[in-house]
Amino acid sequence: MTAVTPESLSTRLDEARRDYAALVDRGLSLNLTRGKPSARQLDLAADLLRLPGDRHTASDGTDCRNYQGAPLGLPELREAFAGHLQVPVEQLVAAGNSSLELMHDCLVHALLGTLPGAARRWADEERIAFLCPVPGYDRHFALCERFGIEMIPVPMTAEGPDMDEVERLAAADPAVKGIWCVPKYSNPSGVSYGDETVRRLAAMPAAAPDFRIFWDNAYAVHHLTEEEVGIADVLAACAAAGNPDRTFVFGSTSKITLAGAGVAFFGSSPANVAWLTGYSGKRSIGPDKVNQLRHALFLRDADGVRAHMARHRELLRPKFDAVHRILTERLGGTGLATWSAPKGGYFVALDVLDGCAREVVRRAADAGIALTPAGATHPYGDDPRDSTIRIAPSFPDLAELEQAIEGLATCVRLVGYEKLAAGERAG
Amino acid sequence: MTAVTPESLSTRLDEARRDYAALVDRGLSLNLTRGKPSARQLDLAADLLRLPGDRHTASDGTDCRNYQGAPLGLPELREAFAGHLQVPVEQLVAAGNSSLELMHDCLVHALLGTLPGAARRWADEERIAFLCPVPGYDRHFALCERFGIEMIPVPMTAEGPDMDEVERLAAADPAVKGIWCVPKYSNPSGVSYGDETVRRLAAMPAAAPDFRIFWDNAYAVHHLTEEEVGIADVLAACAAAGNPDRTFVFGSTSKITLAGAGVAFFGSSPANVAWLTGYSGKRSIGPDKVNQLRHALFLRDADGVRAHMARHRELLRPKFDAVHRILTERLGGTGLATWSAPKGGYFVALDVLDGCAREVVRRAADAGIALTPAGATHPYGDDPRDSTIRIAPSFPDLAELEQAIEGLATCVRLVGYEKLAAGERAG
Repeated sequence: MTAVTPESLSTRLDEARRDYAALVDRGLSLNLTRGKPSARQLDLAADLLRLPGDRHTASDGTDCRNYQGAPLGLPELREAFAGHLQVPVEQLVAAGNSSLELMHDCLVHALLGTLPGAARRWADEERIAFLCPVPGYDRHFALCERFGIEMIPVPMTAEGPDMDEVERLAAADPAVKGIWCVPKYSNPSGVSYGDETVRRLAAMPAAAPDFRIFWDNAYAVHHLTEEEVGIADVLAACAAAGNPDRTFVFGSTSKITLAGAGVAFFGSSPANVAWLTGYSGKRSIGPDKVNQLRHALFLRDADGVRAHMARHRELLRPKFDAVHRILTERLGGTGLATWSAPKGGYFVALDVLDGCAREVVRRAADAGIALTPAGATHPYGDDPRDSTIRIAPSFPDLAELEQAIEGLATCVRLVGYEKLAAGERAG
Repeated sequence: MTAVTPESLSTRLDEARRDYAALVDRGLSLNLTRGKPSARQLDLAADLLRLPGDRHTASDGTDCRNYQGAPLGLPELREAFAGHLQVPVEQLVAAGNSSLELMHDCLVHALLGTLPGAARRWADEERIAFLCPVPGYDRHFALCERFGIEMIPVPMTAEGPDMDEVERLAAADPAVKGIWCVPKYSNPSGVSYGDETVRRLAAMPAAAPDFRIFWDNAYAVHHLTEEEVGIADVLAACAAAGNPDRTFVFGSTSKITLAGAGVAFFGSSPANVAWLTGYSGKRSIGPDKVNQLRHALFLRDADGVRAHMARHRELLRPKFDAVHRILTERLGGTGLATWSAPKGGYFVALDVLDGCAREVVRRAADAGIALTPAGATHPYGDDPRDSTIRIAPSFPDLAELEQAIEGLATCVRLVGYEKLAAGERAG
């Protein structure tokens, strides 16, 4: 942190207070809470709203309008995503409209059924715990809370979760049944896992024989730069390490085509695929194959997916650039905050002075700028340092976003200098 | 049963054997197994494959292409179905593509969460049982088996389940937590519940405070005749009887628009709706609202649904008439079988001589006619009289259907006369 003299601190705090008063006077109403695509991004998929048109037959001859056929989902759509998700096509299932549903249902089936390798149903265990790299995704944590699964935070590093800690916890405690991972362009930090992280996750000894990595590859193709970040093939690494059933891979087209009206994917070992489809076959006669056909016709193949994502990038990149530019202009050199500069995904993680995140979010709300609640990036909503704020730049248009980030920077300066001034007085 | 002299029985058996040999020689390949709409029925919804077209906004302003908005589903679609399903629109949820999923998930949430009125999670009960009117729907029974829920068969009458038996079992045993009901044009018997049946279900004392009626109104608008059979309003009856939370209503458009690519519905008391949506909101950010918009634009309103079902009836009625005509021609007066003449729904229940259903299905399979396995209409696949066969006439075209029913009648004659002849020899 840059040293600040009492005099200059007082000046800066006065400035910040004036700026904040002016901000409140503007009466903004802006929302940076959720990672939602913008209307212009959704317009990129306008053709999808007229498809499949005259077609209703999949490449394998299945009439997509009827029950049955293509039990793992449409082959042509699975083919288009197998490479992107790093899952062999025969082990990749195309399902409904939400990968979160698939994660939920994997937990349900593990609780009420018996996983490959499990001694018993998780519902019959005394205690179940998951490792939760932090900062992380609040909806993962909400699933754990819902099912009474204890959450153990593990800090993120620039290469993924702190693997010394992960290895220690997984080896020591048979109640530790899993870990949440967003391995590429992680929510919210933007970190992509290094190859050594993936290798260690795949190979580490786990006290629970039914330990599972929930590999939420939500941003597999969501690049923000020319560099398409790659991650190691986790299923191959697990197989090579003798732990073939360790990982569930999840993905979806929600942030590729239409949010909530896309297609979700599950990929894993043959044993895990048989396990899930055995149970999901009781739950439903099958997924919406017409929507899968619609997507196959629209996206065509792996290259079609890549080309479509380039159009998203053109819309998203200027927004992320604006966030970085404004934060640098307003907060650079102040010592009040650091922030991520992600190469992909949907979020920027802004770290403010310890103990300031809640107050920044509160001040921003008072000025009409809605942010994800501070703490949401941590299990039980508890960020022990109270320092991480998640910024979702995708939904507002560029002008609104710039206003919101300017305003947020003002709140960070106000709260940060207030804290420093209080420290001066106490000191 | 018509008396048959030994001489005429021998003649009839010889005839049946000749007819069966000729049937096998024809080398048919016909399928009457599942209640699937035919391609011509699916063609009725061809416009759906181009919708929503230029529209993406719901009547409440929700952009259906994005996350969030319309948490209970699109108001205009719920409005179109509220009357048909006899659920107040504010208590009707439009969800995903499968009502079976909703039934599954209600069981899951009751097992892993706490139902309104429940003392504890069902997973923490020593024993859970459901009443299963028989003959019934195999996929309901499969859900019970999957979750270890004991099934107690209750015979169907012409007015619905035997209510003396239902009342006795529900009052006596707190482990009895529910009952499966297909209240209109029941699968497979075609029976619609009488008003008194509905009243007694709503009002009966239940030992379990969290007893639930799973009211699978799958065929609410699926009339086969000019008479649109009505049933009593179960939610209103439950509320009037002081048991407002007793019933979960399910429905879907799978056999209205596209099978597996439609929209499913859940309706219940405000407390139950809050219970389900509280849990399903953890599972998913929301249903596929684009598909709901597509359906709202295509079906328009309650009258639009009715008009569309009239077109299905034009295609289905001749098939059900053919089944009845051929069974009457071939089996009438033989004493070998009785069958239902449903006024709606998707099935005909054929009852053959006790101990003959499995053998009829086996002989039919040998002649290239696939039928639903005998026993599927009963819990654990066990039809104690081995007499009920479910016929699904909707999928084949009329000529194929006629061949299949002719062939089935031949198998019924063969197996029935063989049984009678064996009885003669034993006697």
